[in-house]
Amino acid sequence: MASESGKLWGGRFVGAVDPIMEKFNSSIAYDRHLWEVDVQGSKAYSRGLEKAGLLTKAEMDQILRGLDKVAEEWAQGTFKLNPNDEDIHTANERRLKELIGETAGKLHTGRSRNDQVVTDLRLWMRQNCSKLSALLWELIRTMVDRAEAERDVLFPGYTHLQRAQPIRWSHWILSHAVALTRDSERLLEVQKRVNVLPLGSGAIAGNPLGVDRELLRAELNFGAITLNSMDATSERDFVAEFLFWASLCMTHLSRMAEDLILYGTKEFSFVQLSDAYSTGSSLMPQKKNPDSLELIRSKAGRVFGRCAGLLMTLKGLPSTYNKDLQEDKEAVFEVSDTMSAVLQVATGVISTLQIHRDNMARALSPDMLATDLAYYLVRKGMPFRQAHEASGKAVFMAETKGVALNQLSLKDLQTISPLFSGDVSRVWDYGHSVEQYAALGGTARSSVDWQIGQVRALLRAQQA
Amino acid sequence: MASESGKLWGGRFVGAVDPIMEKFNSSIAYDRHLWEVDVQGSKAYSRGLEKAGLLTKAEMDQILRGLDKVAEEWAQGTFKLNPNDEDIHTANERRLKELIGETAGKLHTGRSRNDQVVTDLRLWMRQNCSKLSALLWELIRTMVDRAEAERDVLFPGYTHLQRAQPIRWSHWILSHAVALTRDSERLLEVQKRVNVLPLGSGAIAGNPLGVDRELLRAELNFGAITLNSMDATSERDFVAEFLFWASLCMTHLSRMAEDLILYGTKEFSFVQLSDAYSTGSSLMPQKKNPDSLELIRSKAGRVFGRCAGLLMTLKGLPSTYNKDLQEDKEAVFEVSDTMSAVLQVATGVISTLQIHRDNMARALSPDMLATDLAYYLVRKGMPFRQAHEASGKAVFMAETKGVALNQLSLKDLQTISPLFSGDVSRVWDYGHSVEQYAALGGTARSSVDWQIGQVRALLRAQQA
Amino acid sequence: MASESGKLWGGRFVGAVDPIMEKFNSSIAYDRHLWEVDVQGSKAYSRGLEKAGLLTKAEMDQILRGLDKVAEEWAQGTFKLNPNDEDIHTANERRLKELIGETAGKLHTGRSRNDQVVTDLRLWMRQNCSKLSALLWELIRTMVDRAEAERDVLFPGYTHLQRAQPIRWSHWILSHAVALTRDSERLLEVQKRVNVLPLGSGAIAGNPLGVDRELLRAELNFGAITLNSMDATSERDFVAEFLFWASLCMTHLSRMAEDLILYGTKEFSFVQLSDAYSTGSSLMPQKKNPDSLELIRSKAGRVFGRCAGLLMTLKGLPSTYNKDLQEDKEAVFEVSDTMSAVLQVATGVISTLQIHRDNMARALSPDMLATDLAYYLVRKGMPFRQAHEASGKAVFMAETKGVALNQLSLKDLQTISPLFSGDVSRVWDYGHSVEQYAALGGTARSSVDWQIGQVRALLRAQQA
Amino acid sequence: MASESGKLWGGRFVGAVDPIMEKFNSSIAYDRHLWEVDVQGSKAYSRGLEKAGLLTKAEMDQILRGLDKVAEEWAQGTFKLNPNDEDIHTANERRLKELIGETAGKLHTGRSRNDQVVTDLRLWMRQNCSKLSALLWELIRTMVDRAEAERDVLFPGYTHLQRAQPIRWSHWILSHAVALTRDSERLLEVQKRVNVLPLGSGAIAGNPLGVDRELLRAELNFGAITLNSMDATSERDFVAEFLFWASLCMTHLSRMAEDLILYGTKEFSFVQLSDAYSTGSSLMPQKKNPDSLELIRSKAGRVFGRCAGLLMTLKGLPSTYNKDLQEDKEAVFEVSDTMSAVLQVATGVISTLQIHRDNMARALSPDMLATDLAYYLVRKGMPFRQAHEASGKAVFMAETKGVALNQLSLKDLQTISPLFSGDVSRVWDYGHSVEQYAALGGTARSSVDWQIGQVRALLRAQQA
Repeated sequence: MASESGKLWGGRFVGAVDPIMEKFNSSIAYDRHLWEVDVQGSKAYSRGLEKAGLLTKAEMDQILRGLDKVAEEWAQGTFKLNPNDEDIHTANERRLKELIGETAGKLHTGRSRNDQVVTDLRLWMRQNCSKLSALLWELIRTMVDRAEAERDVLFPGYTHLQRAQPIRWSHWILSHAVALTRDSERLLEVQKRVNVLPLGSGAIAGNPLGVDRELLRAELNFGAITLNSMDATSERDFVAEFLFWASLCMTHLSRMAEDLILYGTKEFSFVQLSDAYSTGSSLMPQKKNPDSLELIRSKAGRVFGRCAGLLMTLKGLPSTYNKDLQEDKEAVFEVSDTMSAVLQVATGVISTLQIHRDNMARALSPDMLATDLAYYLVRKGMPFRQAHEASGKAVFMAETKGVALNQLSLKDLQTISPLFSGDVSRVWDYGHSVEQYAALGGTARSSVDWQIGQVRALLRAQQA
Repeated sequence: MASESGKLWGGRFVGAVDPIMEKFNSSIAYDRHLWEVDVQGSKAYSRGLEKAGLLTKAEMDQILRGLDKVAEEWAQGTFKLNPNDEDIHTANERRLKELIGETAGKLHTGRSRNDQVVTDLRLWMRQNCSKLSALLWELIRTMVDRAEAERDVLFPGYTHLQRAQPIRWSHWILSHAVALTRDSERLLEVQKRVNVLPLGSGAIAGNPLGVDRELLRAELNFGAITLNSMDATSERDFVAEFLFWASLCMTHLSRMAEDLILYGTKEFSFVQLSDAYSTGSSLMPQKKNPDSLELIRSKAGRVFGRCAGLLMTLKGLPSTYNKDLQEDKEAVFEVSDTMSAVLQVATGVISTLQIHRDNMARALSPDMLATDLAYYLVRKGMPFRQAHEASGKAVFMAETKGVALNQLSLKDLQTISPLFSGDVSRVWDYGHSVEQYAALGGTARSSVDWQIGQVRALLRAQQA
Repeated sequence: MASESGKLWGGRFVGAVDPIMEKFNSSIAYDRHLWEVDVQGSKAYSRGLEKAGLLTKAEMDQILRGLDKVAEEWAQGTFKLNPNDEDIHTANERRLKELIGETAGKLHTGRSRNDQVVTDLRLWMRQNCSKLSALLWELIRTMVDRAEAERDVLFPGYTHLQRAQPIRWSHWILSHAVALTRDSERLLEVQKRVNVLPLGSGAIAGNPLGVDRELLRAELNFGAITLNSMDATSERDFVAEFLFWASLCMTHLSRMAEDLILYGTKEFSFVQLSDAYSTGSSLMPQKKNPDSLELIRSKAGRVFGRCAGLLMTLKGLPSTYNKDLQEDKEAVFEVSDTMSAVLQVATGVISTLQIHRDNMARALSPDMLATDLAYYLVRKGMPFRQAHEASGKAVFMAETKGVALNQLSLKDLQTISPLFSGDVSRVWDYGHSVEQYAALGGTARSSVDWQIGQVRALLRAQQA
Repeated sequence: MASESGKLWGGRFVGAVDPIMEKFNSSIAYDRHLWEVDVQGSKAYSRGLEKAGLLTKAEMDQILRGLDKVAEEWAQGTFKLNPNDEDIHTANERRLKELIGETAGKLHTGRSRNDQVVTDLRLWMRQNCSKLSALLWELIRTMVDRAEAERDVLFPGYTHLQRAQPIRWSHWILSHAVALTRDSERLLEVQKRVNVLPLGSGAIAGNPLGVDRELLRAELNFGAITLNSMDATSERDFVAEFLFWASLCMTHLSRMAEDLILYGTKEFSFVQLSDAYSTGSSLMPQKKNPDSLELIRSKAGRVFGRCAGLLMTLKGLPSTYNKDLQEDKEAVFEVSDTMSAVLQVATGVISTLQIHRDNMARALSPDMLATDLAYYLVRKGMPFRQAHEASGKAVFMAETKGVALNQLSLKDLQTISPLFSGDVSRVWDYGHSVEQYAALGGTARSSVDWQIGQVRALLRAQQA
């Protein structure tokens, strides 16, 4: 009965509840994270009720003071949960009633848990998006700073993991930083759609008591209000978008991690992780493992799994609120925690990574200039397709002779094309090679500087 | 050998190729869809080469005319593929050479298939996003028109599939239309990121021949240029975003389809699908099945599967181009086709659906006004929590007595609360009930009109 | 340094560790669930070391007693974690050393955390599979018992959610029970592959100290030993299989939940959930929502998300152990908990559900016998295709006339086919209709009894 | 109208059909792959009808001959599809009627497309599983043959992509082959569940005409019959299982591909792909890219996407047949084709791969024997934890001195532990190191031979 159990739906149920069902149904274990925003939302709603004449000024003040007390107890860790507190909304309202008496029963007038919980979640996520944005910017900034500082280091660029062409190390850093700027842009878009007020939608039909939703919006500093009460209480696009945002961002970080794991192998030996981001082996004393990077790589799966899970839960759901939607919160909390850790660890990895310039330089080899050899012929007037084929023949000849490509004699080269002359020796210079790529986005120094400027400008614009 | 096989990489390989590997590797079966944009990209690139002094004006004109001829053959269905045409780029260039000779070999100067294919794909998707936007707008417009026309029809609103409160039928329509406006907004954001030029990024390091990427951008009408050549040739964010956009949009449509399938059951009998969107049974003569809606619902899975597949393919991939990225195109083509069909079929379903107003009206029952009964007490000064409990007792009393909620006598009600008086009879009016929800986003007529205006304004703004 | 930090890899590292990285890397928060199996594995391993001459009998006994003490502390809740206990293996070994001194340092001889952790996980999962099997059998048994008891209740069978043909309610119950028997069969197959011993594989190369793996297998009661040490320490097939098993099982339960949610709507009114598995509304006093079923339906997404996440994590991973594999355990623990709760709640729902026989009977309508009408003509010699068309015409005629199908006069029917005669009246009997389906697997009473017998036999066989 | 359109559901519909809906609904574009099994199923069913007395012997013979003719037309490529042939069942029956007249209309008696299509799909998949099994066995056999031949090649074993311990190259091959034997075992289990007859289940309620399902089973050589007609027509477990089987198998192959891509980099240079499985670059003449392996790796995503898509489609679906299930076939066909190609390409890659023994040998370095150094101390009586720490100190000392681990003098080592003596020099022998791992599953020659024997025995057992 209502009076015994204190359950919100009070006077109707007669049966007992299966304890496994109780636990299965309860969300307090995780939605307690929402305590602060739940109080925030209730304070705004009580102001709305007062304006609508459903609370007197004195009642509103009583409720506001009571809610502040509730928040204080949470903040100080003194809030005591009851076994019947199945969710944070029930818990806070139950406590409010203990603190201020029957007036507490007026707070939920015209409100439903359906609009309440989604308001809470949006408030929480809005704040969380800002935190993650800041962490993401910090990572990008670290990368750009490093790219600027190490602009003159050359090393092999790979495609298909095969050595392709000499590039600047900074060009590699920027390739990942640029990807992250898209994540940053997308996060702002997600946050824009998070930042919309659903409060005042009730359970399904809207608010019947003249509550001014514009006032609620202003109180809670939302950017807009939801358009339709049925949609407002049951759409979780903003959650799905957030989870997908995280999935795509993690995909980027998984690729950067993969590169760094490879570059940190004995065989590549381009980089060395700081001890702070490595661990050892319980069996092999010589091992130093890139656990930080492996964990970053692996989290791409976990985060995407949450996105997949939510979309599957949403598929084919009848419209409006169904309890299925309770799955949203754990996904958001877990993914937010993961992203926060990953972004900070990635920043730490990048900022403490050592590079081995000598190994990088040693890894450049003349065959990586085969394209330059073709361009040499192009500049002498040969169509590229023929030049590409001619250069391919030179590569084959060098392989057959067992010498490096730049060790072929002029006479050898001239058997392939009469266009080769003494100036071909200028091709064999890695510094000269990279400086060719001066078109925007290329690996020439001017282009790398341009990229740095562009990314910095983006960061400034987004932070504004 | 090059001369035998005509393969792009010409002079180097000596082994034979496994026919299963040939087919496994070949993409022409699907990337032929790109023929038009491939020609378009090559035309722009030849202009870039001319400006950079790598083609004479005459050579450029020869190439442009040749490419127009290639396009004409595709358009007229006379283009003949060779067994060695492993992809659309090879095919078009091979044909160009047949048409204009060795000059064709200059077209690929400084370009790689890595930047070529992603330029093609972006051109194709840009156009496709516009098409899908228009189809989506057509669906939303149909829904809004219908919502306006049928504004005065009331029926039960459900939460948890249990009858909750009376709402307007238009409110239901708009709940789905509003969800689709977010898809529309997101599609424009995706398209913005699709609309960025990667051409001039080469294989990995950029363009070494002074090609003016700003000219290429203007020629191809892109909104911006990519910032980093390594990222430009290997990032597929725009594909992943598109696939996720489609997945979320399909989730919305799957929920609308689920509602309509339910509303079309014998038990609900609120709506009837047009025969044009139903099919019969090979066994049961009386059956008329909502196949169109079931297919829409099912495609949510297929489309999301493509999104999941691509993200998994991208996870942990080393940076820059790897052949793994070849998976992007079939996903884009299949999902684009699916979305195009789904949006058109959904529009057809909505525009031809019949509604059974009588059944809708009959399905409204007094217990759906239990919340109104609580509000009645709230308006008399009772705190909502107590009013909710009192109304719950009335529901229980009516159930116990086996009568409808509005059949309880005033005396009965007064045993629950002395605040009940004769004016309680005014509660039992569905029309009055919905008109209470006049806060923005609610189901009152004024609020539904406001929603219609808001969605129309959004459509106009997005189309601008 | 080793002496300070007590980390397993001891003497090598010189840097400090980022606290966020520490937490990111640590698994003790969840792998502590493995405390019991970790002790169990270590006890077996110490016996292996003794047999191999690496421990004296006295040392072994000392270790065994120490491990028992460790287990006792865990069981009694007195085990104290240190900040440096990054995982359960480290924690238990650290504590063992505190308890018995340096001899503890011999336990890990030839063992690696790579083979240790996967042994622990397999032990844990083996036990867990047995628990879940028992819960699944309990659910199936409940369903079969109910099917047997309510064998004579008829109600509409639906395809495409349209009324199709009369069936027995038990036939519906059994359709879901039969699906679950496949889950039961699959779980035994998964368990068979879980039940394979990896211990003795070391970090990658195997065990170098002559440890007898057959002895370890027998000690730990595994069914077989792994074949290859590299595979043994890094394959997580058994985890992926388990997660997929759970996903498919949840898909079945989501479909059953969907059916029951529909059957429990006001419109269908076939079933009523026990209050113990329903909850109310914080706003609407008359609501009673099927939260238990909605949660079951929703968990299909969550569980599958874990499966998707793990597969993505595994995709493209270099062979042997990588830290990415640490993702396996949280997935297993979460999914196991979810399955345990879901199976028990489902059993509770089924065992307490009320059915409304009258409503079920009332929902049978003559048009559901249209197929029978076609069979009537088939039995008179008309080819089925013509009979199907003729019956379809009768349905159309009845609709046009606004009467029920069985209200068409014989004359009416004879305008469609002269084969109709007076005995057509016998078609309009639902009991007679269902009894036709006497082929194995059909809805006739004999066939339903056969199904019950088959499922019971399966359960007996699997439990044996 | 029926007579015009020839649609199966004949006489009822009056509206026109949207051409986009027609195409959306039609499955003939892909289910035509089922032509042979559809004929096979129909032949068996006509035998069942004859036994049940619903066809005369003469009618049955007429139908059997007609169906043979239909099959012949398909086999010879002369079968002509009509625009109204929406699926293979309709097409074949339409053609049968053209060939033999009205008797064709008796074939579908008591059968529904619901049981027909799932019977067809199971027949097709049963055959396909056998084909894939054979291809998988061929791959495993190739790997085992190679492992046997190259048993004496040593190279570095890696964990976390860091050099760990010397292992046999064959041990690596076998680590992947052993994983594939689990796929082989699982495929047989899937096939067992594919091989169950649903025919005779009708649309939902079963077969009402006394058709002997045991006869149908025997005719079509199924291993068992389905237990419940509602489940039989709507469960797609066998499809989901097959898709997951493929996903997990692809995960294995993606990991093998990843290893080989790494081993084929310039930096590792352990292996070289045959030209037959490589391709070149359109820009860089020196490039030879492992496209075959990258495609194998990428397909893991695509295949899993299909699995994810199907599960999402199934989630929450009301029981029995819904059109959503039409999604099953394209997934099966695409994944089957992909698996067939992948397995054959992988076999080709493995059988033609060259290994660079010298590079493999050169990559072994003394620090990889640090664990052996610890074992040296263990054998002298030091507890492993201390020995591990002592060896770690030696590694650190060698690094600090800038010498290889085996270049530390005995005096150096004795500063770490007095247990070191002259015999420590025997540690520095890679051949001796691997031979230590003689426990079952290890990398010693005897253990590798044992693995080869075990895998061969498994193959023989599974093929039996």
